[in-house]
Amino acid sequence: MVNIAILGYGTVGSGVAEVIGTNKKEIKNKAGQEIMVKHILDLRDFPGDPYEDRVTHDFNTILNDPEIRIICETMGGLKPAYDFTKEALSRGISVCTSNKELVAAHGPELIKIAREHKCNYLFEAAVGGGIPLIRVFNNCLTAERIEAVTGILNGTTNYILTKMQNEGSPFDEVLKTAQEKGYAERNPEADIEGYDAGRKIAILASLVSGKNMRYEDVYTEGIGKISATDFAYAKKMNSSIKLFAIFREVGRKYYAMVAPFIVDGAHPLSSVNGVFNAVFVHCNMLDDTMYYGRGAGKLPTASAVVGDVIDASKHIGTHIICRWTEDPMDVLDFDRIRHKFFVRCEKGKEDKALELFKGARVLSGADAIEFVFVTNEMTEKDFREKAAELGIISRIRVME
Amino acid sequence: MVNIAILGYGTVGSGVAEVIGTNKKEIKNKAGQEIMVKHILDLRDFPGDPYEDRVTHDFNTILNDPEIRIICETMGGLKPAYDFTKEALSRGISVCTSNKELVAAHGPELIKIAREHKCNYLFEAAVGGGIPLIRVFNNCLTAERIEAVTGILNGTTNYILTKMQNEGSPFDEVLKTAQEKGYAERNPEADIEGYDAGRKIAILASLVSGKNMRYEDVYTEGIGKISATDFAYAKKMNSSIKLFAIFREVGRKYYAMVAPFIVDGAHPLSSVNGVFNAVFVHCNMLDDTMYYGRGAGKLPTASAVVGDVIDASKHIGTHIICRWTEDPMDVLDFDRIRHKFFVRCEKGKEDKALELFKGARVLSGADAIEFVFVTNEMTEKDFREKAAELGIISRIRVME
Repeated sequence: MVNIAILGYGTVGSGVAEVIGTNKKEIKNKAGQEIMVKHILDLRDFPGDPYEDRVTHDFNTILNDPEIRIICETMGGLKPAYDFTKEALSRGISVCTSNKELVAAHGPELIKIAREHKCNYLFEAAVGGGIPLIRVFNNCLTAERIEAVTGILNGTTNYILTKMQNEGSPFDEVLKTAQEKGYAERNPEADIEGYDAGRKIAILASLVSGKNMRYEDVYTEGIGKISATDFAYAKKMNSSIKLFAIFREVGRKYYAMVAPFIVDGAHPLSSVNGVFNAVFVHCNMLDDTMYYGRGAGKLPTASAVVGDVIDASKHIGTHIICRWTEDPMDVLDFDRIRHKFFVRCEKGKEDKALELFKGARVLSGADAIEFVFVTNEMTEKDFREKAAELGIISRIRVME
Repeated sequence: MVNIAILGYGTVGSGVAEVIGTNKKEIKNKAGQEIMVKHILDLRDFPGDPYEDRVTHDFNTILNDPEIRIICETMGGLKPAYDFTKEALSRGISVCTSNKELVAAHGPELIKIAREHKCNYLFEAAVGGGIPLIRVFNNCLTAERIEAVTGILNGTTNYILTKMQNEGSPFDEVLKTAQEKGYAERNPEADIEGYDAGRKIAILASLVSGKNMRYEDVYTEGIGKISATDFAYAKKMNSSIKLFAIFREVGRKYYAMVAPFIVDGAHPLSSVNGVFNAVFVHCNMLDDTMYYGRGAGKLPTASAVVGDVIDASKHIGTHIICRWTEDPMDVLDFDRIRHKFFVRCEKGKEDKALELFKGARVLSGADAIEFVFVTNEMTEKDFREKAAELGIISRIRVME
């Protein structure tokens, strides 16, 4: 039997207890032994809860219990989660977390402490919710050189974009509905502006490369400027608009960015709709693979934490290899990143546009009220300069 | 450093050597040590091949080399692969295989021998080629009760169905093109009739349930009867036709079957096209997830074998838990399986059809040359009897 403690009995923490309770038999089969929740740390009490008697308000109760070899950190936030995690790992107690902020901010340091103390810092739930992405990168695609990762890593924005696409509704209206339904937070900035997806792609980038990609180095652009007109053109191009979090190796440098992209309808990511997440991976031997599922939600996220607990229980006293080090990643200058761009500008600028963007593919018909085209592949810098010279209404990057 | 041997230097076996050579650095990073090919067993010699000097014709050279702790069995077929595998495992040498026939026929016995001798019998490459499916079921979805698996597990048939759908061409013609292009074998029976997919779903069913599903117990139905007319109606229903390999838990019983299905265009599997494979998994906590990639081919398959080698190298002297036992699975009687059915029958049978299949949804217009409808959900037995009474042209199961 393995005894565990849960830090933070909120949505994910109580989900962890629920998954362990509901799938007791399956978990025992997979772990080879029973997993029991012995302590729950929370500031609150939970009268009437089945785990009421296990709640403690003092982290030391957990730390000083020699039976506890695995902790689930489902508190979120940097403080006090960071200190608690360091303290536990330094004592050889494995920590399984859903806390993507902490992983993005201190991942390599915490992995290093785990390695030094022959335990594990596992964070499957921090990226892609219940989709087993971390394990796929760490333990599955091990014979591969991973050259490109393209992800839909934020369910809120994918829900909004899907609704805009299907219903032709404007962004503000769909956001309001999403907030009413609980799919978007009252303060939706972290989702809408791409910061959440940015944290997640920084984590994946670091796992793939073995170097540390700081999330501050991920260029992020939100979906607030995407309009019904953009979707109308995307439809004409037999394409979707998705908020992509991408990671690429170019030469010996890397970059990660989050931005809306127009993506061809034949691409498997173009039909990932609603709150679902997916990650599309290009490797040098295996070619393309994709992983799809619910990127958030109480039980999917808790299931990923419990999956980590099972993994940790099978590796007590052993550190599972995780390549993410504190070595800084050699990041490609943003200006040198290359894409095609979908551009809308005013009527009457046709000649200048086609002179600046030689070889552009024109999308608007003679009777359209704007001049719309797709450029050839070009650098961000080159595009920015030419777009400023032309004066444009809007632009979206294009992935084919 | 870990020394390995490759049994069978054909397509997959030489692919294993190629993956290890090309991705040397990545593999060392993931395994924590270098992996070297020391022996290659084959009846032939390979003058000029970079591994020429490592070729042996005698299995005992490998078996008696104490440095060899891991073998890749890429011979295919039951004999002599079965004997070689048993012999190696009995000596505590792990075996990583791409041989789905052997895994389907003797998997649980070989896993048991591996368990008894603290080594591993790993077979990621046997199902879904390079898609990490086995590891997903064994090591990733560990906190889950897996309730349903729906897979496109045969690239040849998916290529043919995709071509038929996109081009409106008849089956025989597309098969011929597929054979010319090397996507289908000269004797395509194992693919076309669903036997190959049947072996693969039997393996997945056994891994999920922990009991043994014999591939002989998997009902298989091929794609040879699917016509351009069927695709025309599927299109009208905004659907695709796919050869699905499915596994379901119903009450405390299980069933697996392979058959063409009409599947709604909104289902993620409906847009899996060409030679690609995908597996859609429904779990009780995580809800739906999907895994997509190349299900065959030299390098994707070899990559999966090498992934297993890396896993085996990290677990020398330890058996990785694999739940597949020799316990027979409690298989649900085929007659009791329930589906909706898409039915085409002659004009003039409208009244009788709607009397037999109450509540059926009619698809054909007044001017159609056939009467076409979709039944409500009903058992295989009930459908078979009523269809016999009506007399029908054809039927395809429907998944929504």
